Amino acid sequence: MLEELKRQVLEANLLLPKHGLITFTWGNVSGIDRASGLVVIKPSGVSYDGMTVGDMVVVDLDGKVVEGKWKPSSDTPTHVELYRAFPGIGGIVHTHSRWATSFAQAGVGIIPMGTTQGDYFYGEIPCTRLMTPEEIAGEYEKETGKVIIETFAGKDPEAIPAVLVNSHGPFAWGTDAENAVHNAVVLEEVAFMNFHALQLSPNRGAMQQELLDKHYLRKHGKNAYYGQG
Amino acid sequence: MLEELKRQVLEANLLLPKHGLITFTWGNVSGIDRASGLVVIKPSGVSYDGMTVGDMVVVDLDGKVVEGKWKPSSDTPTHVELYRAFPGIGGIVHTHSRWATSFAQAGVGIIPMGTTQGDYFYGEIPCTRLMTPEEIAGEYEKETGKVIIETFAGKDPEAIPAVLVNSHGPFAWGTDAENAVHNAVVLEEVAFMNFHALQLSPNRGAMQQELLDKHYLRKHGKNAYYGQG
Amino acid sequence: MLEELKRQVLEANLLLPKHGLITFTWGNVSGIDRASGLVVIKPSGVSYDGMTVGDMVVVDLDGKVVEGKWKPSSDTPTHVELYRAFPGIGGIVHTHSRWATSFAQAGVGIIPMGTTQGDYFYGEIPCTRLMTPEEIAGEYEKETGKVIIETFAGKDPEAIPAVLVNSHGPFAWGTDAENAVHNAVVLEEVAFMNFHALQLSPNRGAMQQELLDKHYLRKHGKNAYYGQG
Amino acid sequence: MLEELKRQVLEANLLLPKHGLITFTWGNVSGIDRASGLVVIKPSGVSYDGMTVGDMVVVDLDGKVVEGKWKPSSDTPTHVELYRAFPGIGGIVHTHSRWATSFAQAGVGIIPMGTTQGDYFYGEIPCTRLMTPEEIAGEYEKETGKVIIETFAGKDPEAIPAVLVNSHGPFAWGTDAENAVHNAVVLEEVAFMNFHALQLSPNRGAMQQELLDKHYLRKHGKNAYYGQG
Repeated sequence: MLEELKRQVLEANLLLPKHGLITFTWGNVSGIDRASGLVVIKPSGVSYDGMTVGDMVVVDLDGKVVEGKWKPSSDTPTHVELYRAFPGIGGIVHTHSRWATSFAQAGVGIIPMGTTQGDYFYGEIPCTRLMTPEEIAGEYEKETGKVIIETFAGKDPEAIPAVLVNSHGPFAWGTDAENAVHNAVVLEEVAFMNFHALQLSPNRGAMQQELLDKHYLRKHGKNAYYGQG
Repeated sequence: MLEELKRQVLEANLLLPKHGLITFTWGNVSGIDRASGLVVIKPSGVSYDGMTVGDMVVVDLDGKVVEGKWKPSSDTPTHVELYRAFPGIGGIVHTHSRWATSFAQAGVGIIPMGTTQGDYFYGEIPCTRLMTPEEIAGEYEKETGKVIIETFAGKDPEAIPAVLVNSHGPFAWGTDAENAVHNAVVLEEVAFMNFHALQLSPNRGAMQQELLDKHYLRKHGKNAYYGQG
Repeated sequence: MLEELKRQVLEANLLLPKHGLITFTWGNVSGIDRASGLVVIKPSGVSYDGMTVGDMVVVDLDGKVVEGKWKPSSDTPTHVELYRAFPGIGGIVHTHSRWATSFAQAGVGIIPMGTTQGDYFYGEIPCTRLMTPEEIAGEYEKETGKVIIETFAGKDPEAIPAVLVNSHGPFAWGTDAENAVHNAVVLEEVAFMNFHALQLSPNRGAMQQELLDKHYLRKHGKNAYYGQG
Repeated sequence: MLEELKRQVLEANLLLPKHGLITFTWGNVSGIDRASGLVVIKPSGVSYDGMTVGDMVVVDLDGKVVEGKWKPSSDTPTHVELYRAFPGIGGIVHTHSRWATSFAQAGVGIIPMGTTQGDYFYGEIPCTRLMTPEEIAGEYEKETGKVIIETFAGKDPEAIPAVLVNSHGPFAWGTDAENAVHNAVVLEEVAFMNFHALQLSPNRGAMQQELLDKHYLRKHGKNAYYGQG
């Protein structure tokens, strides 16, 4: 069942330690098969060492396990919520990567200060509002998804493929599981650069909108001319 | 004698360089056999390269050597004091890991600012008070243990499995030697994140108590639902 | 055609990941054959893994492709502009290396604060002015080259072989492609040191001119005595 | 001639890249044979890759080459000056290591804020005064040694085995070449910790003198009890 997707999700999970985005098991990647509405996700609390295709868990868009010998990641309800709200995305990743999580803990979004961010994110990478005690006490992981969706009201999640969950850490997404991890790597780089640029120039503010337009649009959309496409 | 415990303690010591927690010989891990009240600990000032099970030292809860060809770690009296005061712990580690030690040198505890800390530490990782000249001139390493114990008056050392010794560095502990090192790795991560979050938001303060409760209690205690347990 | 230059440019490109200067494909190195006026440059958006001499692209000084199976780097018009204006240089590299890019994002040049910089750069590594909306909307990559050239009015690009493009990232150059990468590595080191020195002494200012003279001139020019030359 | 010393100095030089203390050829280690008054030092500007015992240069205490196929390090006059003034030392190392050099560029000494420093340095690691234009224009490298010696007036160089040369970088020394490199590694660690502790507690000041005494003296001198000695 969904063997190719399982392989993709496994490999995307294994990219996390390769890119230095995780410590221990603090991360999870999923991918969706839009035709069937089924999601493949990493099991909960299982080590990356020796993880195989057979360890992947299949859930439906209600988060119910369809196949798998393990419990799915405890963050599964967040992933599912995002897949339902953002129909254009094919993969999601959650990590506690060091630089992005520092911003999340500070409750501060990552404004675009340079073209590195502009090449991938068409604007600020937002930080969610604090969750209410009721949301935390209720279906917490599902509510986490809802507050992310609320944060993207009026924004295009495909043009800003990441978010900082307040006091928690980042979620990133993309066209598929590997692309989601790619964006998580970029997020970590721009968090590093934004942090240090802010130390050097605290009141610098965002980059020129014209430059952001130029860089984002030379790589995305119908007038793109970057790469071999 | 205690061959399995010696193997565990050796392997836990070897995890220190693997996780980048130590420079040269600046660290030591111990484990206790609660049935016999005997502690296995790393020898003093011996290199990690080529260290074997036979290099481990066995001491009793008075810190006296019971078996071993080397002198035990000079921090042995601190370990022993903690084992006596905290009956629920099975392993202890001391390092001079970079980020946690920076907080210790600043005399600043690590308040919980995000779920990474909340997943492992149920509150602030405290920094001990300055020791008195008498404590320093006396049985210094034993007094170090006592000031840690004083710091945990009214706190649960199993729910906050680490401390920063003022002007010195961290001690972490856990259910066994490996788990103690695991907590030392987490400590280093949260020290990194806390430092940078404070630079971004100096007056941010601790995370919401409800969120701390949620994260700590979804992984610990009778209502835990994280992982495969 | 230009096989030796292609090999040099390929090898210089492969030094970028070796020195930790790039993430994914975010960098490009070129080299010029001054006799023919032809430039060899990395293709656009192609991975460093498995890149071969045959992937290199040859362009003329108008940026037109003379040979190659791929599109050249989208930054090619910047490289070409610099080769035309700075006749003494033989190689150029562009990266988004973390520390130098942080300065570029802050819009802050790297003033000489120590001999590490003085050994390679005879003064401040300048940051360009912001580009105008017209420049950004026009031939952007060519205009990027022009604003760099404008920044070096009255400066010797051979004595200050790097620049920070405002809100973007660094370009470095040198006598050939490998030497350009060498200077990009130095730039990253001095950006690191300058950042932290500024945190420690915000009002320190530039080093003594006499010391800068001494260090730069003991390695460069007719009175140099460093090395085996 | 001095084959064993050459081997020691070569190996100590090769420790520099292993410990991440150098970029390219930016460092040099020497060792002295006190019986003959001859110093073995790394050649100037030669790569660490493939360096052999035969590349080492032998100089006398006037800095004159006694044996060797290369020119000695351009910093040789500094090394020689220190060997003459500090008769208790057997090895010297100079690097541009990132954290220590950041302090040197800021013109700021490293005050003792924790036991990591206290275990190796009995007080502040001082930063030299600015050199005069005359000193810089004269026998610069020899004058560098003299200003270091001036900085240690009233201090014991064996108890504080490193210095920051203002606007330049660190020199460290020790009982032999390997021990000098060991101290250079410690210096880099304490520079890291001191930097971050100062960010967290800018007005913290030095650690308690009693604690510094305790840590330094439990590892050094006749009452030491650390290690297996």
